[in-house]
Amino acid sequence: DAIPRNLPADHISHYDLNKLASTPMAAYNKERVLILTPLAKFLDGYWDNLLKLSYPREQIELGFIVPRTADGDAALRKLEVAVKQVQNPKNTKEPKFAKVTILRQDNEALESQSEKDRHAFKIQKERRAQMAVARNSLLFTTIGPYTSWVLWLDADIVESPRTLIQDLVSHDKPVIAANCYQRYYDNDKKEDAIRPYDFNNWIESDEGLRIASTLGDDEIIVEGYAEIASYRPLMGHFYDPNGDVNTEMQLDGVGGTCLMVKADVHRDGAMFPSFPFYHLIETEGFAKMAKRLGYEVFGLPNYLVYHFNE
Amino acid sequence: DAIPRNLPADHISHYDLNKLASTPMAAYNKERVLILTPLAKFLDGYWDNLLKLSYPREQIELGFIVPRTADGDAALRKLEVAVKQVQNPKNTKEPKFAKVTILRQDNEALESQSEKDRHAFKIQKERRAQMAVARNSLLFTTIGPYTSWVLWLDADIVESPRTLIQDLVSHDKPVIAANCYQRYYDNDKKEDAIRPYDFNNWIESDEGLRIASTLGDDEIIVEGYAEIASYRPLMGHFYDPNGDVNTEMQLDGVGGTCLMVKADVHRDGAMFPSFPFYHLIETEGFAKMAKRLGYEVFGLPNYLVYHFNE
Ligand SMILES: Nc1nc2c(ncn2[C@@H]2O[C@H](COP(=O)(O)OP(=O)(O)O)[C@@H](O)[C@H]2O)c(=O)[nH]1
Ligand SMILES: Nc1nc2c(ncn2[C@@H]2O[C@H](COP(=O)(O)OP(=O)(O)O)[C@@H](O)[C@H]2O)c(=O)[nH]1
Ligand SMILES: [Mn+2]
Ligand SMILES: [Mn+2]
Repeated sequence: DAIPRNLPADHISHYDLNKLASTPMAAYNKERVLILTPLAKFLDGYWDNLLKLSYPREQIELGFIVPRTADGDAALRKLEVAVKQVQNPKNTKEPKFAKVTILRQDNEALESQSEKDRHAFKIQKERRAQMAVARNSLLFTTIGPYTSWVLWLDADIVESPRTLIQDLVSHDKPVIAANCYQRYYDNDKKEDAIRPYDFNNWIESDEGLRIASTLGDDEIIVEGYAEIASYRPLMGHFYDPNGDVNTEMQLDGVGGTCLMVKADVHRDGAMFPSFPFYHLIETEGFAKMAKRLGYEVFGLPNYLVYHFNE
Repeated sequence: DAIPRNLPADHISHYDLNKLASTPMAAYNKERVLILTPLAKFLDGYWDNLLKLSYPREQIELGFIVPRTADGDAALRKLEVAVKQVQNPKNTKEPKFAKVTILRQDNEALESQSEKDRHAFKIQKERRAQMAVARNSLLFTTIGPYTSWVLWLDADIVESPRTLIQDLVSHDKPVIAANCYQRYYDNDKKEDAIRPYDFNNWIESDEGLRIASTLGDDEIIVEGYAEIASYRPLMGHFYDPNGDVNTEMQLDGVGGTCLMVKADVHRDGAMFPSFPFYHLIETEGFAKMAKRLGYEVFGLPNYLVYHFNE
């Protein structure tokens, strides 16, 4: 049985990691899913989407890490209200999450968080190093011996299929990323449209490897910037609206917007490097580390989730 | 306050990582210490020494990971008997540990564990990669948001000062290693004697760096073998019986026999690489990773703990 044998009377907990499964039948097998979200802003769209997920809520734990900024203060207040409403014992209308952990970051965060500011190339390295540390703190302090799956879900993912968890685990991959898009209004065509958002899901290219070989030990490549043209094939560009939603592609870099990870991958040691690791950091460095640990990394180009549009 | 605000009624736990301290006044401040032990053999000497430690037991959590071998089965049975005796609610004579977690490893372990076999150079890489994964599984699944310190203590450390925890934390270092020695009988001198045991505590040398620069990407250096003469100064050789027990020295590699780590170092992402990381793995790779994360690593050459002698 995958259920821990708990002996709270004498304060001993036994866990057999061999019997802990991460399977495509996760819901049926009552496998625990830990949803982890670094959260600098609280968006109603994120929360509503989260509550709509159809995976059994009793098997879901939530973990948040909130930065120590004015934005973070505001986000924390909204998050607490939202969480308390669902988890209130008097609220008998809906199931509760198995556990909710809210961490407050201990380091200073970069204050400005407009999409333009945070995407400026020169501040990316510091910003992503901070995000890496935040993700690690959240991961190390919330993953338990009973966790089967970890879903990294950014706080600005406002739309996904309700069956997100079941769909991602059904592929039975150590690491698998959804394709993160964004809705916008196309001013030329005068119509609603979608465009790729997360450019951290990519396949390594010869040019990427060549650039890496020219870099100093502490230099990094971050994908999605004209300053470094790596010609890496980006999953964002592989979306085919007529294609099979289950199409898989192998990846070398991943983003953290919507990423399912078998807990054993993390348990073996895969974390988010805040220092250059093969010239990669944060989620892109995580993908490389998972591969160094012997795991394969995949993406689903035709399986879309949507990022908020400021 | 460093004490988590727990709201079990609505299943929310709040933790402010900024208010979680790891200080030299750990016992006074009621800081939680997590003692982590990979355990292939259960030695009475280890357990007796552990029970003699004078740090308040209510602030200590224990975590063990036991391999899936015949030796592991036997060790687990003995460990369970020992733990149950201390933690038995009817045992009102002595304080209880705050929590005890016992993990069973999920991968196959190398069966032979004689000192000679496990030290053979050619099997060190595979063996230490397995140990790294075991340490990571143990770490990721037991460190909590309230953990202030992690003490790595091998299952064959059979003698240490009773104030081990207080002594190590009093140095207030991110990572600090005791000097692990071994008692033996000197046949020439016909007397009891001591000798250095753990050779993974070292300072990088020019020759070590030179050797590393000649290695292929996937090759490693493990310290303590004539096959690779790195001329790294080893802490084991710095012991001065007349010296100040509080003498500190900076290290570049560490062993895991008796190693105190501020929990934030792990939380930031420092783990035990099972793949070559700067040509280092396991605890030696951990030291390098802690340094890449911006932390300093120390050892106490005159502060001895003793390894069992088979
Ligand atoms: N804890 C924490 N979360 C942050 C911080 N900055 C951003 N986030 C969150 O981390 C995720 C990714 O950040 P975001 O700014 O959306 O990145 P982008 O969409 O890739 O530009 C989102 O869920 C943010 O709410 C921070 O400093 N600390
Ligand atoms: N979980 C686990 N622990 C192990 C395994 N092999 C050794 N250990 C434990 O890991 C620690 C270090 O191993 P040991 O064989 O003493 O290494 P050495 O003294 O450096 O040769 C000790 O506490 C062992 O009991 C293993 O395969 N799995
Ligand atoms: Mn975002
Ligand atoms: Mn040993």
